[in-house]
Amino acid sequence: METLIEGRNPVIEAIRAGKPIDKLFILDGCNDGPIMTVKREAKKNDIFVKYVDKERLDHMSETGKHQGVIAYSAAYEYSVMEDIFAKAESKGEDLFVIILDNIEDPHNLGAIIRTANLAGAHGVIIPKNRAVGLTSTVARTSAGALNYTPVVRVTNISKTIEELKDKGMWFVCADMDGEEMYKLNLTGPIGLVIGNEGEGVSRLVKEKCDFVAAIPMKGDIDSLNASVATGVLAYEIVRQRIGR
Amino acid sequence: METLIEGRNPVIEAIRAGKPIDKLFILDGCNDGPIMTVKREAKKNDIFVKYVDKERLDHMSETGKHQGVIAYSAAYEYSVMEDIFAKAESKGEDLFVIILDNIEDPHNLGAIIRTANLAGAHGVIIPKNRAVGLTSTVARTSAGALNYTPVVRVTNISKTIEELKDKGMWFVCADMDGEEMYKLNLTGPIGLVIGNEGEGVSRLVKEKCDFVAAIPMKGDIDSLNASVATGVLAYEIVRQRIGR
Repeated sequence: METLIEGRNPVIEAIRAGKPIDKLFILDGCNDGPIMTVKREAKKNDIFVKYVDKERLDHMSETGKHQGVIAYSAAYEYSVMEDIFAKAESKGEDLFVIILDNIEDPHNLGAIIRTANLAGAHGVIIPKNRAVGLTSTVARTSAGALNYTPVVRVTNISKTIEELKDKGMWFVCADMDGEEMYKLNLTGPIGLVIGNEGEGVSRLVKEKCDFVAAIPMKGDIDSLNASVATGVLAYEIVRQRIGR
Repeated sequence: METLIEGRNPVIEAIRAGKPIDKLFILDGCNDGPIMTVKREAKKNDIFVKYVDKERLDHMSETGKHQGVIAYSAAYEYSVMEDIFAKAESKGEDLFVIILDNIEDPHNLGAIIRTANLAGAHGVIIPKNRAVGLTSTVARTSAGALNYTPVVRVTNISKTIEELKDKGMWFVCADMDGEEMYKLNLTGPIGLVIGNEGEGVSRLVKEKCDFVAAIPMKGDIDSLNASVATGVLAYEIVRQRIGR
């Protein structure tokens, strides 16, 4: 479903708020201040601009007040927890969710949603504050997975973990000081918790987890990229699930 | 080790050649054509610019001919194949190399070098043509791994595989139509071959490989991000190597 955003300020605000803009149409030859701001914000956010004539804009406009700018927003909607439960149930599988404790990079979030889809996770849970949301970069990096894998936003990750524990789920978080992942039993209804790119999983969230899993590190540097680490851990869960 | 690049054209050429520029100093208030070109190229390549006064530039300059522009290049050097052999030998381990058949995205290359380092691969091999080289984005995304893990550039990936086979190595490439990775024996001296982001492994290279490994896909979309797929496969090799 696409939403039309018309006019200079509404479009600038939408871009700045990180709304996923699919297409941006600007009146050709128009170079005044606010239009230059739209162009600059578009460039910063990697949004493709198409320059068109006034007739085309008038034709697209729903309000008649486009002021030379119309954006199509893809309106990626957040799902609710029930969508995740329904997905697991319809497949007759034990719940498998990926919980992101504050991922900041939209490329990482997109790649993780892509991984979640392919590893058979039933959904991704992200926090409302501080972390990155479903922007157009996330949508693009997810390579289409955002259309299939529910992404739920919650106010408090720790509280959500508690609630899901009441439903019989186990939680494992990724941290270097944990037990080698191959030695943990990661079968059954499980939540994989991945921390922030720089700081890892926060203390409060870590305390809620049943296991701490470590990816064996044989190198000279500190840690894997967050989306690579998620892939490696998610596939250890896949391996144990299919009994290899 | 850092190299100083001074003057407008040398700096523009260095940036365009993808040399890793760590710092770029430009004379404050200078806005003529060539300087604008430097700024534009810097922006395109994500290079941080610092504006300084003439005194500071004169002080940094080694040639006295900075023309208002001085860049520090990190001079990431490609390694030679012997560096990879030496690394495996010094650790007393079976060779483990990651071969990239045309990775185009610098973020993927950087993340893969980072993964190679942590998974204990002794080096990364990339092709000279078409693929991305060691740019500053690659260096940054590798999170320091580029300082430890040798990256070798070769003219012909197929020929390199042949030569390494003569040294007793086995090669496995990643492709959806392969055998489930858990069912393959991935121990011993091994080369993991990862294809291009869009097209996968090229036919000629695939024909040289001993195995084709598939990551189990349970989702709705086509494939994992290239650096995530590399991580999942590299860690399957790690798991088999440490006998879990």
